[in-house]
Amino acid sequence: MVPHLITALTGPINELEQRILESLPAIERWFRLEWMEHTPPFYTSVDLRNAGFKLAPVDTNLFPGGFNNLTTEMLPLSVQAAMAAIEKICPEAKNLLLIPESHSHNSFYLMNVARLMEIFHQAGLNVRLGTLDESITTPTEVPLPDGSAITVEPLVRNRGRVGLKDFDPCTILLNNDLSDGIPRVLEHLHEQYLLPPLHAGWALRRKTQHFDAYEEVAKKFAKLLGMDPWLINPMFTKVGEVDLSEGAGTDALMSHAETLLGKIRRKYKEYGIQEKPFVIVKADSGTYGMGIVTVRDPKDLANLDPRVREKLSVNKRGRQVGELILQEGVPTYERINDAAAEPVVYMIDRYVVGGFYRVHADRGIDENLNEPGASFVPLAFAGSNQLPKPGAKPGASAPNRFYMYGVIARLAMVAASYELEATDPEAEVYE
Amino acid sequence: MVPHLITALTGPINELEQRILESLPAIERWFRLEWMEHTPPFYTSVDLRNAGFKLAPVDTNLFPGGFNNLTTEMLPLSVQAAMAAIEKICPEAKNLLLIPESHSHNSFYLMNVARLMEIFHQAGLNVRLGTLDESITTPTEVPLPDGSAITVEPLVRNRGRVGLKDFDPCTILLNNDLSDGIPRVLEHLHEQYLLPPLHAGWALRRKTQHFDAYEEVAKKFAKLLGMDPWLINPMFTKVGEVDLSEGAGTDALMSHAETLLGKIRRKYKEYGIQEKPFVIVKADSGTYGMGIVTVRDPKDLANLDPRVREKLSVNKRGRQVGELILQEGVPTYERINDAAAEPVVYMIDRYVVGGFYRVHADRGIDENLNEPGASFVPLAFAGSNQLPKPGAKPGASAPNRFYMYGVIARLAMVAASYELEATDPEAEVYE
Repeated sequence: MVPHLITALTGPINELEQRILESLPAIERWFRLEWMEHTPPFYTSVDLRNAGFKLAPVDTNLFPGGFNNLTTEMLPLSVQAAMAAIEKICPEAKNLLLIPESHSHNSFYLMNVARLMEIFHQAGLNVRLGTLDESITTPTEVPLPDGSAITVEPLVRNRGRVGLKDFDPCTILLNNDLSDGIPRVLEHLHEQYLLPPLHAGWALRRKTQHFDAYEEVAKKFAKLLGMDPWLINPMFTKVGEVDLSEGAGTDALMSHAETLLGKIRRKYKEYGIQEKPFVIVKADSGTYGMGIVTVRDPKDLANLDPRVREKLSVNKRGRQVGELILQEGVPTYERINDAAAEPVVYMIDRYVVGGFYRVHADRGIDENLNEPGASFVPLAFAGSNQLPKPGAKPGASAPNRFYMYGVIARLAMVAASYELEATDPEAEVYE
Repeated sequence: MVPHLITALTGPINELEQRILESLPAIERWFRLEWMEHTPPFYTSVDLRNAGFKLAPVDTNLFPGGFNNLTTEMLPLSVQAAMAAIEKICPEAKNLLLIPESHSHNSFYLMNVARLMEIFHQAGLNVRLGTLDESITTPTEVPLPDGSAITVEPLVRNRGRVGLKDFDPCTILLNNDLSDGIPRVLEHLHEQYLLPPLHAGWALRRKTQHFDAYEEVAKKFAKLLGMDPWLINPMFTKVGEVDLSEGAGTDALMSHAETLLGKIRRKYKEYGIQEKPFVIVKADSGTYGMGIVTVRDPKDLANLDPRVREKLSVNKRGRQVGELILQEGVPTYERINDAAAEPVVYMIDRYVVGGFYRVHADRGIDENLNEPGASFVPLAFAGSNQLPKPGAKPGASAPNRFYMYGVIARLAMVAASYELEATDPEAEVYE
């Protein structure tokens, strides 16, 4: 079940693993105390990069797809976590309305939707699907690759509530990241729980806000363990709005990249790392790893492919203007067969419920793997493999590795909860 | 992993299974509402009997041993449930003191203790073992069959708190059923959480109180599903104190047995059941299935083996006086190979975390299986097998069977929470 992993885990990461295992009770207590003060996102998936010398989250998804990539052996963990989440939010709930991505005919994504329905049904809710696609005006059956089908239905808005015909949900679960903006049908729902909240969607969310919060979390956690936060924190720069169609915009981006590369070089020198540093340019808003560019030399930015430039621009007014973030590149030294692999960890409420490796045979260790051609190798995070084995040699035990991944992923989840508190437009302000 | 099961599941039990599966969201919601009003026991195991025409809990253990019989694949479910329990009780907790049975050199039991330590360590606590055995005055290592060892330490009482030398726990978890009475060292601990509470131990607990509460729960649940509560509820009679050394005591017991057998006969007639009814005599207090007698004919009670009579007497003053309960016998029609088998379901907090079949090749379907010679066949309640498969033919699907067992076991757990509320000596009385 667990694929053969070739890892290059020597040096500091093994120290990190050992420290994390030794500190297990303190770490779990630290999380318990964090969750006393903060509310975890409803569900979260986190992409990690393990460079051997460093382990860091590079993307935190608040509308995770890919639940279908978890093995069925992991399902009871998801169901139990979903039960815990429902108990807290709305124990009287009977009905859950799930809103998936619109226009998606991707059969993998549809299997993810079916899996989510299964999890929440088992957790004890009547689950139905509502679509934001206004071209769907009657219940519409969508066939799945396994021969079954799901039915999406048009949303019905009645004053303060949204639902379906003859279906009034207590909670609305978004599995749609709102990249297309906030739909009016979901605004001002004060009588129902809308999870995640609208400001978690890419219409409003910014990666820089998340990594600001993550930096704070990483510092707190590093203090607990007495280590350098850089070992778990990817540095970044908020570039802000840049017009890539003009020379001045490109110059500014190059200058930011040069500065960040300089910082990474100093860290590499401090730790005796012989790698060539690189940075990642991406849109500050938006998901799916669209238009993620690996930059080893800032000069490369002068000659960006026009299609890449377009992808980096979230501005839809036809100009090449985008809010950008530059992030320290963290190479991935995990391998499955010969392909670069990165772990993805799934959480419901505060609990790690599973994970898999994203594998891409045609991408380098310093490139984005979340692109067409990627495949998924489910990992038995569940089963005994999720549990650390005390006494095993650091780096030698898959269970220990997975526990560490679960810890770092949960740090990103804590950061997401800080981020959502800070960006909540309806938060009460205490002065 | 799942053993081949020969079951005789025809008739009403399949209707019950079907109704339970169809009602899954309503059932889970019912449990959620119960847990809003009542606190689940910290952990629970429930012995079930599946007679084909009837499915009922026959014993509810509030100090479960046997966690070592769960497969390691189930461990993450236990850890997640333990995390949820700790978060509610004492999120700031660092230390957990576990008090196991004293004087137990049973290596299976010791493996259970080691497993519990592992679960609570993974959940994020420093776990150490304190013993009620006053002959242990220094930390003492006890070897385990797998080559590892556990260390039991003498308890240290300081005014309002109990702990170990240099170990001050927030929570004390009893895995000792207090059959020997309530130890003074555990009395009046108002600054710490003592779980389960003292009145859950056999020094004070009575089976009749539990089955009183279970009857109430079974009625509520049966109303929800629109069915006869008898299908999930074993009838019983509180016999009270009986002196079995005197003819009058035996006569009274025989008369009670005749009455209960009559009630069962009427129910069997109502459902067209061709079996010969039987009743079980057991002590109202005490565990381990000691001195459980199967009675097919009340006249058998006149000629009880003196050793059995002694086992039925909890009174330690040398007389054959015991508080007794008569319970409707529920035959078990589950088979593993050729041996009678009964499912045992494990719960931590409100969650089903695993289970196994108790199997005894030398016992009949109407006899107690919890006796020397029993073996344990772990069942993949975890894994996808815990999750019901919608659409599968009732009775034909192991996952469906296990979901039903988990529901009935949780009803017994709800009953235990009612029972502990009703018997709490420190409960506030509202008049």
